[in-house]
Amino acid sequence: MVKTGVVGLGYWGPNLLRNLYANRRNGGLVICDSNAARLNKMAQHYPDIQSTKKYQDLIDNDDLNAIVIATDVSSHFPLAKQALLAGKHVFVEKPFAASVEEAQELVDLGKNNGLVTMVGHTFMFSPPVIKTKEIIDSGDLGDIHFITSSRVNLGLHQKDVSVIWDLAPHDFSMLFYWLDEEPDFVEAFGHDYVLSGIPDVAFINLGFPSGATANVQVAWLAPSKLRKTVIVGSRKMLIYDDTEPYEKIKIFDKGVDILEPKTFGEYQLSYRTGDIISPQIDSFEPLHSEMEEFLRCIETGATPRTSGRSGMGVVKALEIADKSLLAKLKKQQ
Amino acid sequence: MVKTGVVGLGYWGPNLLRNLYANRRNGGLVICDSNAARLNKMAQHYPDIQSTKKYQDLIDNDDLNAIVIATDVSSHFPLAKQALLAGKHVFVEKPFAASVEEAQELVDLGKNNGLVTMVGHTFMFSPPVIKTKEIIDSGDLGDIHFITSSRVNLGLHQKDVSVIWDLAPHDFSMLFYWLDEEPDFVEAFGHDYVLSGIPDVAFINLGFPSGATANVQVAWLAPSKLRKTVIVGSRKMLIYDDTEPYEKIKIFDKGVDILEPKTFGEYQLSYRTGDIISPQIDSFEPLHSEMEEFLRCIETGATPRTSGRSGMGVVKALEIADKSLLAKLKKQQ
Amino acid sequence: MVKTGVVGLGYWGPNLLRNLYANRRNGGLVICDSNAARLNKMAQHYPDIQSTKKYQDLIDNDDLNAIVIATDVSSHFPLAKQALLAGKHVFVEKPFAASVEEAQELVDLGKNNGLVTMVGHTFMFSPPVIKTKEIIDSGDLGDIHFITSSRVNLGLHQKDVSVIWDLAPHDFSMLFYWLDEEPDFVEAFGHDYVLSGIPDVAFINLGFPSGATANVQVAWLAPSKLRKTVIVGSRKMLIYDDTEPYEKIKIFDKGVDILEPKTFGEYQLSYRTGDIISPQIDSFEPLHSEMEEFLRCIETGATPRTSGRSGMGVVKALEIADKSLLAKLKKQQ
Amino acid sequence: MVKTGVVGLGYWGPNLLRNLYANRRNGGLVICDSNAARLNKMAQHYPDIQSTKKYQDLIDNDDLNAIVIATDVSSHFPLAKQALLAGKHVFVEKPFAASVEEAQELVDLGKNNGLVTMVGHTFMFSPPVIKTKEIIDSGDLGDIHFITSSRVNLGLHQKDVSVIWDLAPHDFSMLFYWLDEEPDFVEAFGHDYVLSGIPDVAFINLGFPSGATANVQVAWLAPSKLRKTVIVGSRKMLIYDDTEPYEKIKIFDKGVDILEPKTFGEYQLSYRTGDIISPQIDSFEPLHSEMEEFLRCIETGATPRTSGRSGMGVVKALEIADKSLLAKLKKQQ
Repeated sequence: MVKTGVVGLGYWGPNLLRNLYANRRNGGLVICDSNAARLNKMAQHYPDIQSTKKYQDLIDNDDLNAIVIATDVSSHFPLAKQALLAGKHVFVEKPFAASVEEAQELVDLGKNNGLVTMVGHTFMFSPPVIKTKEIIDSGDLGDIHFITSSRVNLGLHQKDVSVIWDLAPHDFSMLFYWLDEEPDFVEAFGHDYVLSGIPDVAFINLGFPSGATANVQVAWLAPSKLRKTVIVGSRKMLIYDDTEPYEKIKIFDKGVDILEPKTFGEYQLSYRTGDIISPQIDSFEPLHSEMEEFLRCIETGATPRTSGRSGMGVVKALEIADKSLLAKLKKQQ
Repeated sequence: MVKTGVVGLGYWGPNLLRNLYANRRNGGLVICDSNAARLNKMAQHYPDIQSTKKYQDLIDNDDLNAIVIATDVSSHFPLAKQALLAGKHVFVEKPFAASVEEAQELVDLGKNNGLVTMVGHTFMFSPPVIKTKEIIDSGDLGDIHFITSSRVNLGLHQKDVSVIWDLAPHDFSMLFYWLDEEPDFVEAFGHDYVLSGIPDVAFINLGFPSGATANVQVAWLAPSKLRKTVIVGSRKMLIYDDTEPYEKIKIFDKGVDILEPKTFGEYQLSYRTGDIISPQIDSFEPLHSEMEEFLRCIETGATPRTSGRSGMGVVKALEIADKSLLAKLKKQQ
Repeated sequence: MVKTGVVGLGYWGPNLLRNLYANRRNGGLVICDSNAARLNKMAQHYPDIQSTKKYQDLIDNDDLNAIVIATDVSSHFPLAKQALLAGKHVFVEKPFAASVEEAQELVDLGKNNGLVTMVGHTFMFSPPVIKTKEIIDSGDLGDIHFITSSRVNLGLHQKDVSVIWDLAPHDFSMLFYWLDEEPDFVEAFGHDYVLSGIPDVAFINLGFPSGATANVQVAWLAPSKLRKTVIVGSRKMLIYDDTEPYEKIKIFDKGVDILEPKTFGEYQLSYRTGDIISPQIDSFEPLHSEMEEFLRCIETGATPRTSGRSGMGVVKALEIADKSLLAKLKKQQ
Repeated sequence: MVKTGVVGLGYWGPNLLRNLYANRRNGGLVICDSNAARLNKMAQHYPDIQSTKKYQDLIDNDDLNAIVIATDVSSHFPLAKQALLAGKHVFVEKPFAASVEEAQELVDLGKNNGLVTMVGHTFMFSPPVIKTKEIIDSGDLGDIHFITSSRVNLGLHQKDVSVIWDLAPHDFSMLFYWLDEEPDFVEAFGHDYVLSGIPDVAFINLGFPSGATANVQVAWLAPSKLRKTVIVGSRKMLIYDDTEPYEKIKIFDKGVDILEPKTFGEYQLSYRTGDIISPQIDSFEPLHSEMEEFLRCIETGATPRTSGRSGMGVVKALEIADKSLLAKLKKQQ
């Protein structure tokens, strides 16, 4: 049984709290928010759990094994560092930290003190993403050539971070999870149309050691909601469309084969087209799995699927992409 | 009435020929192909027109006012140059030339000799593309922020040019036509998965002097056919999907407005969502309009919508994009 | 302020209760269910409202002005009759009653005692249905020729009533509301494939005094969920697809006109095709409006949009359709 | 080798002619149309085949083994009868005849004289319809419960026959082919909105000896083109959408099972949902197969898939449906 402190009860924190509360491994909860209204609202909803306005109370509470952090990005690092130094396992909402330096320090602290560090890349616990991982790992798609991903719709503009830091963590975490590698090339292009200095559209290119490439589009400005990922493999291709109510994943038995030996450039290409299959996908709440994973790893010492280390990989790519975009933006102006 | 020589009767030439043949301004035709089988097939189909295997016969034929060139890209320049030097108007299939240098020389030759130079960017004569131009020019969308375009499906791999030179001319010509400007920033990323040295997938970023940006995806490897362009304006947004049988264009009355003055960063954003309109679109054959435009400009001295000059702008962007992709590809390997 | 008793806390009752509880006209609530578990669950959720296992307690409670009935169809009549005889306004879940006879008696009781009778045809408070009504009433579609409606998906089989009584009340109530008339012709065809004696698929034809016709498909067996209504008018046509997340309604400027006078059968038809418009639709909870309508009508003496009288019209059509289907089914066997 | 006369060169005849002309079993052709313009146009297109304005010339031509009839419905019977009496095999466009009586006489004439009678139900040679037949026959769907089919769009109104005779032959021929049986119950409902006396929308119910039922919607008035058939089996379900460019057929592994023995009505239902598969479908021209089938059956004495007998079954259902609709229409007016 794990006793957990939850800090940050804004938009996302209450969802984590609800799933922690219902988890069989939950051994007690303390909630914390500097905003009294939010704190009281949650305290009323869960009359049996303690609450405090001071984060230091969580740190000082020796009963707590773990801290779940769902505050603004800028406070992820100081809060997590304090917790780790106090010997507590930490779960940090995505993105893991505001820079690679911060992320690295948290990962090191966790490692050196035998503590779990985990990041809230919820998509990696979502059934269609896991199904896609299984399909890729089965070899059914062959080698992965390239992946394109679109995550766009109208709103909700952030006022402190770019659209890259807001939306791309989802795509990056999925991509790195599926490919089992991190990119050795990242560049981005985009613009700040609505709020000066806050890019609201970005096109990100990624290259991976395996030779795979990826293009990720993120935008707060778009006529229709897109949550679509296309994976092109050497044998088959897959489309994962998260806005589809029923056929979220489709596997296309499509590809191109080289028929003749490449003698004097006289080879032939053959195009294959076969059945299309939309596999049945389990339905469970990703957040439940995510919290279960955190508590399980604390109890067993296992490394979480979304370890702090993996969160650092995402932060690194975000940082490079953001800088790449801003550099071009400055040059253009 | 214009007398025209047509050279190159492979895949596309016969379509141009058919439309020239039926045009009211057509004053006579001579066809030319070094491949006897192709030439004879067309000659049988049009028993009343002359044919020759030698391009020089077209050049030497003083009756001919104009030459239509539908051969391989590499021969566009020498054939067009010869024709212009012989005082003949030229129409060149897309892409206009294999390099900016070549394109510039052709444009100059046309200009200095008072001859029409035109490029076969057929999409600029297609009803939905023209409709989109009208909508943009009406100001209905407001300022154009960004445009994304996808032109992907399985096949048909070219063996001599990259997917950029093969497919991007369509998108580039549409984009520059709609925006009425050429990009001052072009970069690309991609890979050569099937045939070494021939990139088959590319992600291209473009920046324009007005501040507009664009992302173009082209690929010969993709599970489903996409021909989709999204235009995000400051007032409204538009989706043009060329694979839709009926609703090719949709206009979304969507946008984000800044409500409060930006005092100390304390502004509010307001998201607008209104009706969606799919306008009725004329139906006519783009190729007919294209050939009509060529013959009309010869007769009247007008500059064609798809002038050699505009073709050069596309070639320039293709050249930069291709080099950008190849440079990164080399670095990765 | 209205004091209301709510009887039946199974699947739907709690939704009605939630909306009554939050309504500004709510002057007090008493809940009732013979099932102690259900009753206690709701009592815990709303600690400030009274509860009872005996319906007679509601009847005897002189403080209550109104009764909301959300029990099985077979008990609608006796419960509502008792309430009306006790001088209480009644709201009855759909279908209003199990037969026209019952419905008529309830309507008469309400009328003669100056009490509101209302039926829970929730769709008539749903934004796209109301929008469609406005469009029809505006004359934009011209005369309504015919309407087709499909309400099918896999499950949920009822064990006591046919698919007609289960699903068709939605379509019938919408149709009669839109057309402002009740059918003078009803027939149905279908079958009982899964449970003998309980038809699980039905095709219903309706004819209306105005000349309009309709075809309604309802089924508990279908590969994909359909909630689609097509309205063909003499001037325009409309599709209302309730499964669409964004474009629920589309208006097609399409039609056929007779050009020439019909002399000797030598007339010409002309087919019109214009823009397609998907109007923006308000978003509010239908159940809130429904409960507001009930309480408002009690307070003001107005007749509800979904009056008992209108509920009787639906019951009449259901009764005829069900008998028509069963008669043919018997003959076939 | 078969020598064939083709009568009727309006809309459809030229398509049949083109496929006959190219068929390897074709031993010669004579074409016939009373309209000189049509006849000359075809004669010019095929300079090597004979032509005549008089049908009697075909009858008197002893070289001809077979007659293909693509004239108006009303002339199908007299022309086919004459041909059969002259000892010639006949292919008749759909519908086979204008009444069951006529159809029966033609079938009998063919049978008694050892001549092939065939009807042009082209859909029964179309790849997705054949694929669907294979899937049904494989037992993959289980017992076929019911089928719904929609064949609607705006136009093209016929001026002499109802929408049932115009469009329903396609659906009826597919249904009877798939189910391998003809209906023992047919009824229809509909209306004549545009041209008085010519129903332009019809809803047709069919019952089959096996217990299968079907609902067919046909209309010349509809906002969007539908060519969609849904087949619900006891094990799986299938959707065939002929307007889909790629995924014309989808098989849904969906169904409902009865879990418990039906003791005292206390059984449980279980709903199954699994993968969705869109099988790859061959692509060939149905008309080629149809003409091949006609010539092959003449040469081998085999019975065509779309025999005159099967055409008669369709005519019978059309006749009953049409009368059923008209009877109700008269009553309503």
